[in-house]
Amino acid sequence: MALENGDKAKDESSPVAAVAAAMMKDWTLFMLRLACFLATASATIVMALNKEKKTLVVATIGTSPVTATLTAKFQYDPAFVFFVVANGLASLHNLLMIALDIFKHKLSDKGLCLVIIPIFDMLIVALAAAGDGAATFMAELGKNGNSHARWNKICDKFGTYCERGEGALIASFIGLILLLVITVLSILKLHAKPKLTTTHTSSVIP
Amino acid sequence: MALENGDKAKDESSPVAAVAAAMMKDWTLFMLRLACFLATASATIVMALNKEKKTLVVATIGTSPVTATLTAKFQYDPAFVFFVVANGLASLHNLLMIALDIFKHKLSDKGLCLVIIPIFDMLIVALAAAGDGAATFMAELGKNGNSHARWNKICDKFGTYCERGEGALIASFIGLILLLVITVLSILKLHAKPKLTTTHTSSVIP
Repeated sequence: MALENGDKAKDESSPVAAVAAAMMKDWTLFMLRLACFLATASATIVMALNKEKKTLVVATIGTSPVTATLTAKFQYDPAFVFFVVANGLASLHNLLMIALDIFKHKLSDKGLCLVIIPIFDMLIVALAAAGDGAATFMAELGKNGNSHARWNKICDKFGTYCERGEGALIASFIGLILLLVITVLSILKLHAKPKLTTTHTSSVIP
Repeated sequence: MALENGDKAKDESSPVAAVAAAMMKDWTLFMLRLACFLATASATIVMALNKEKKTLVVATIGTSPVTATLTAKFQYDPAFVFFVVANGLASLHNLLMIALDIFKHKLSDKGLCLVIIPIFDMLIVALAAAGDGAATFMAELGKNGNSHARWNKICDKFGTYCERGEGALIASFIGLILLLVITVLSILKLHAKPKLTTTHTSSVIP
């Protein structure tokens, strides 16, 4: 009888502990998603607004200088356009996941949600990583140039444009690292989902 | 008694069916991994061996032309070096996963394996996507140039180099798509792992 009571107490306390632990984990995941959203959204906005105009003296006729106004815009480079699209979609994904987290108690199929989230997280990781890879190496080219291909650096002329681009890249990399952590947690959550226990009790009472 | 026998028959047949289904899935996963390894390894090798020498006439002194030999190598571009490293690591990862699949019956903790595989798959997806993103936009620059940054195209001079690079990129993208499919399957496998703990308790009270 004592054993029976002990078992009952264990049965009652463990779901409470499990729910508390799950809530703690959900809270961590929520904060990570929010931080990730802020990082990717900042990266998108900073890069999308990145523009610098520069007036350079290109020649001198007599004593009067001939100037030309050059503009550096993110739209001029396909890699930066892709970076903005990738980070924008990553922000949107995080926002949707936050909304899903808030309204998940209204969902009927929580199991499906549990498996779809890491899959979408992983696809967004791929997209964000591709955007970051493309923009990083294009930024590196803008900063250092490539003597073999005779591509001159442009950061000596457009300093502010390059600094803002660097800021967007740093924010995006923070977002990518957070997204990687979130995806690992989503996979671990799927692994640790509550296990069903089916008990068959056959009592033969003559 | 009839019910008991029926239950027993169900209990015996379902694990067999589950094992057969798992073997079919494992076989699909094995073939996908092999195809992914071949794609990423081809991409690595084709890009790593990509080199083209070209002798161009740069000037004419009197009647004798002055020639210069120019070389295009993947090492000259950091994005292509990263592409080779990323695809090389993706190939190595797939090879290790194939080896793990062959020797998994010797492992003591299969559950740990089940959760670690999708995590590593996802990290490799991020790496391969970053490599592909970087190389694709650098290749696009080599093909079309960028008039705003005054970066001239180089594919008009190094046609073979660009064609081989394109081949490596296509192989790498096939590898990335296969890796995405594999990661989705790894996550689904984790979701579908046997969870039921069946306890049969028979209490015979006379």
